[in-house]
Amino acid sequence: MTKAYAANDAGKALELIDTELPPLGDHDVKIKVAFCGVCHSDLSMIDNEWGITNYPIVAGHEVVGEIVEVGKGVDSGKLGNVVGLGWHSDYCHSCESCSHAEHNLCASASSTIVGRHGGFAEFVQANETSVVALPVGIDIKTAGPLFCGGITVFNPLVQYQIKPTDKVAVIGIGGLGHLALQFLTAWGCEVTAFTSSDNKADEAKHLGADHVINSRDPEQLEAAASQFDLIISTVNVKLDWNLYLSTLKPKGRLHFVGATLEPLDIGAFNLIGGQKSISGSPVGSPAVIKTMLDFSAQHNIKPLVEMFDMSQINDALTHLRAGKARYRVVLQADF
Amino acid sequence: MTKAYAANDAGKALELIDTELPPLGDHDVKIKVAFCGVCHSDLSMIDNEWGITNYPIVAGHEVVGEIVEVGKGVDSGKLGNVVGLGWHSDYCHSCESCSHAEHNLCASASSTIVGRHGGFAEFVQANETSVVALPVGIDIKTAGPLFCGGITVFNPLVQYQIKPTDKVAVIGIGGLGHLALQFLTAWGCEVTAFTSSDNKADEAKHLGADHVINSRDPEQLEAAASQFDLIISTVNVKLDWNLYLSTLKPKGRLHFVGATLEPLDIGAFNLIGGQKSISGSPVGSPAVIKTMLDFSAQHNIKPLVEMFDMSQINDALTHLRAGKARYRVVLQADF
Repeated sequence: MTKAYAANDAGKALELIDTELPPLGDHDVKIKVAFCGVCHSDLSMIDNEWGITNYPIVAGHEVVGEIVEVGKGVDSGKLGNVVGLGWHSDYCHSCESCSHAEHNLCASASSTIVGRHGGFAEFVQANETSVVALPVGIDIKTAGPLFCGGITVFNPLVQYQIKPTDKVAVIGIGGLGHLALQFLTAWGCEVTAFTSSDNKADEAKHLGADHVINSRDPEQLEAAASQFDLIISTVNVKLDWNLYLSTLKPKGRLHFVGATLEPLDIGAFNLIGGQKSISGSPVGSPAVIKTMLDFSAQHNIKPLVEMFDMSQINDALTHLRAGKARYRVVLQADF
Repeated sequence: MTKAYAANDAGKALELIDTELPPLGDHDVKIKVAFCGVCHSDLSMIDNEWGITNYPIVAGHEVVGEIVEVGKGVDSGKLGNVVGLGWHSDYCHSCESCSHAEHNLCASASSTIVGRHGGFAEFVQANETSVVALPVGIDIKTAGPLFCGGITVFNPLVQYQIKPTDKVAVIGIGGLGHLALQFLTAWGCEVTAFTSSDNKADEAKHLGADHVINSRDPEQLEAAASQFDLIISTVNVKLDWNLYLSTLKPKGRLHFVGATLEPLDIGAFNLIGGQKSISGSPVGSPAVIKTMLDFSAQHNIKPLVEMFDMSQINDALTHLRAGKARYRVVLQADF
């Protein structure tokens, strides 16, 4: 049994329930949740924005906590480890992606919150492959958002072999973007923040941005023509993507980690002329999560969080829905 | 002075004219045209499809011929060399792309047929950087199409470090596609041809395709889910690009070397889920053209051409416009 905060329908307040956990699999671990970040995709699932939600749903996939029980196949030395758990809680372990340690691209990966219950709970279970221990130097209170928001923006730097000499821009300075600025600064890059909120400009610079551009001002974008090797877009609103393509250098990449459901209306000749790419990616593999945690500890990179007790979860969701989070909401378990 | 076949207006027959050549620049060479391929972009320029044509225009940018005069700054040893000339006839020589030997991405590159006259002529002039000598083993009669059609489909294999173990598909088996099949087969890849012409299936296999799929048959595409590391699209018609994305493996790339003016309606989540990319590229640098020529000589790769005398140029264009070229039209100078 576990206590959990469940959504029973779109737009309804979450309710505290008692629910059965499934039998612990041989390679599963049971985590006592200490903290859980709140990601926009939790809201999307709670509100059934993507049309794939089965109610009741217990969301939450930026979990940090202690392993309190292990399956028969798991080294008992893992008991007591403090670990994090992100979007994925298991993988198929046999496809080409899994065999290349790219588990995050496994087409049969299990989500922590789709078809099972997530971290807005006293306990959560996951396959041992999907949890990563916190290294020394990572603060347990603020680590949760690294496991989804953080890895999502860190992973492209690894995947596309971004160099410290590259010039990189981040669109959207929120839960993901504020971490991207920190990673990129530590990575050695010249960093530009695109934000529609003028009041975030100073903070973006404090987080490491060398330049701040208003994301909705065509004149400022035109002035930035042919500047960037990489743009990471974290937003879920439609922007003038062809104009953003014009701010890429030859061979540059516009990379989406956030998106809307409506199509990207990309002019093919805007790709062909300068050998440009657009792409996207989901979270990251356990191996890259570990690399990210070590890099974060080394460079003292931390999510900026607002703490709520988990019993105040509905207040926390209201705060996030209003666009007021600076920059990530983290719930502290108080069952 | 040179004789040349000029278009004086969209849709009109070309006319034989006598025209002045500009003074030969210090680093220019003058080529006596022996053969010139006809590319679809010649038609696009002759017909002002892209709205950038200034009449009269002398098209032709798949030139092969002998260097008959060199500028003051050019090694006179180049006189008599048999060389090829493609889409670009000069570069700025100073931008970041030029300094990295990626001249084809130079934003100030000159086109062989935009703002100067091209290879449907007795003579053509170009900067020495933009012409590449034919190596031993390359047939002068059929080499022209390598300098635009060939390099355009060869260059992505170099740019994206395609491996012989990759599975690659080509959309459109025409002037570009029939060369792509040959390059990819010699490259060691398992090759799939997408064509809308059932009568090209046998020839596609003869050119090296291991598999042939009807490009407009959704059922055949669905059966090819998650198959390809790379798809090169050579067509200038709209297809169901999101369906093509579904035929890519994780980390796969859909690469455009042909395109329509209408936007690509790409679903961002179709990129994000499998870390996929879409991209485009124009022709290739002189260095990669040289690599392509050597590779073609090594593997006996040849454009399949239909020869016309240049005096029959209007018949040749009619043949190409009718979609009857198998697979490239080459004009033999007969001034």
